Amino acid sequence: MAVRSTSEALFAGALTDFPPSDALSEQILDAAREQFMTFGLRRSTVDDVAKRARVSRVTVYRRIGNKDSLVQACLLREYRRFVVDVDDAVAALPTVEDRLVEGFVAVLRHVREHPLVGGLLRLEPETMLPFLTLESGPAFLAMRAYLTDRLREARLAEGRPASDPTPVAELMVRITVSFLLNPVSCFALDDEAEVRAFARRYLLPLLAAG
Amino acid sequence: MAVRSTSEALFAGALTDFPPSDALSEQILDAAREQFMTFGLRRSTVDDVAKRARVSRVTVYRRIGNKDSLVQACLLREYRRFVVDVDDAVAALPTVEDRLVEGFVAVLRHVREHPLVGGLLRLEPETMLPFLTLESGPAFLAMRAYLTDRLREARLAEGRPASDPTPVAELMVRITVSFLLNPVSCFALDDEAEVRAFARRYLLPLLAAG
Repeated sequence: MAVRSTSEALFAGALTDFPPSDALSEQILDAAREQFMTFGLRRSTVDDVAKRARVSRVTVYRRIGNKDSLVQACLLREYRRFVVDVDDAVAALPTVEDRLVEGFVAVLRHVREHPLVGGLLRLEPETMLPFLTLESGPAFLAMRAYLTDRLREARLAEGRPASDPTPVAELMVRITVSFLLNPVSCFALDDEAEVRAFARRYLLPLLAAG
Repeated sequence: MAVRSTSEALFAGALTDFPPSDALSEQILDAAREQFMTFGLRRSTVDDVAKRARVSRVTVYRRIGNKDSLVQACLLREYRRFVVDVDDAVAALPTVEDRLVEGFVAVLRHVREHPLVGGLLRLEPETMLPFLTLESGPAFLAMRAYLTDRLREARLAEGRPASDPTPVAELMVRITVSFLLNPVSCFALDDEAEVRAFARRYLLPLLAAG
């Protein structure tokens, strides 16, 4: 299965120009995303994606590549959208506390509204569970690095001591991923007011502790 | 696979007399535990366990039952040992903060020293991952209920307001399970001094927030 190497390719390396972002590539990737979310990764073929995108199989190969490349391109595009969404949601907020709370709200909203990962998790858990747990290393480190960078910038901007925010960032990523993996909860995380209250009450004390 | 129904049978119902705790049953379950940890659940048979325990196949069926019952008995015995270990580690401590810190240390020590769950997770992730994530409901609720009860008793004993400790208990279970599921970490959780420092620094603020 391609997911392990995809995870490493996705998150271990530097940002690249892959996937291309021209209109035809976007059309193929939109089709691939819908195909994967509907039928899972395992049973989907390049032919299925080509048909759904109303292009030829050769066009898919020329623009994106084989099936592994399609999966990688979809997940990478999703991850970039995720980062942009979260950054956009918090950019104008004045304090790190506000940005953390609204960032957490944006993360859960993104997972709800763009459910590639969550949808595949329910459709094909045997493929997605290893990618989100035992083999999550590169993706987990990328998320932690993203949040660590944001927390470090905030500390510097606010003139606070520059202690390493990695532990706090890691804990927050763990809590967030946990809600995807273990869905039974006493928190109603599909309710944005409750998500916000959760973050204020339980994430901000971790920030202070770090 | 038996794991889903096992999880429900294990954790949803009341405590029962199963498995029996006489010497012969213990001998069979010790053999089953070793068999499962070495060869996984899927490939192990009642015959394998009987041979390892040096008893007849009929004795295994009479004392414990079929393979599903063996798996259930092993996990249930492990869970009870886990609860007793954690309770023993914290019983003499004066404050809820101390009990929480040493309880977390005891949980991680138990996972390290009695690695049925962790061992099976590495040996047979396709069986164990659903049991620890999407289908973890009953086990997850049992752990949360255990910790909720302990926190509630502590609040009552210390004369503090009896607000519901369920949210804090859930968060702490989530963080603990996360270290089993996502092993890449900046924390050295095989070092007890570091585990203790982690709990003081990051779990106690959650207790105060709850």
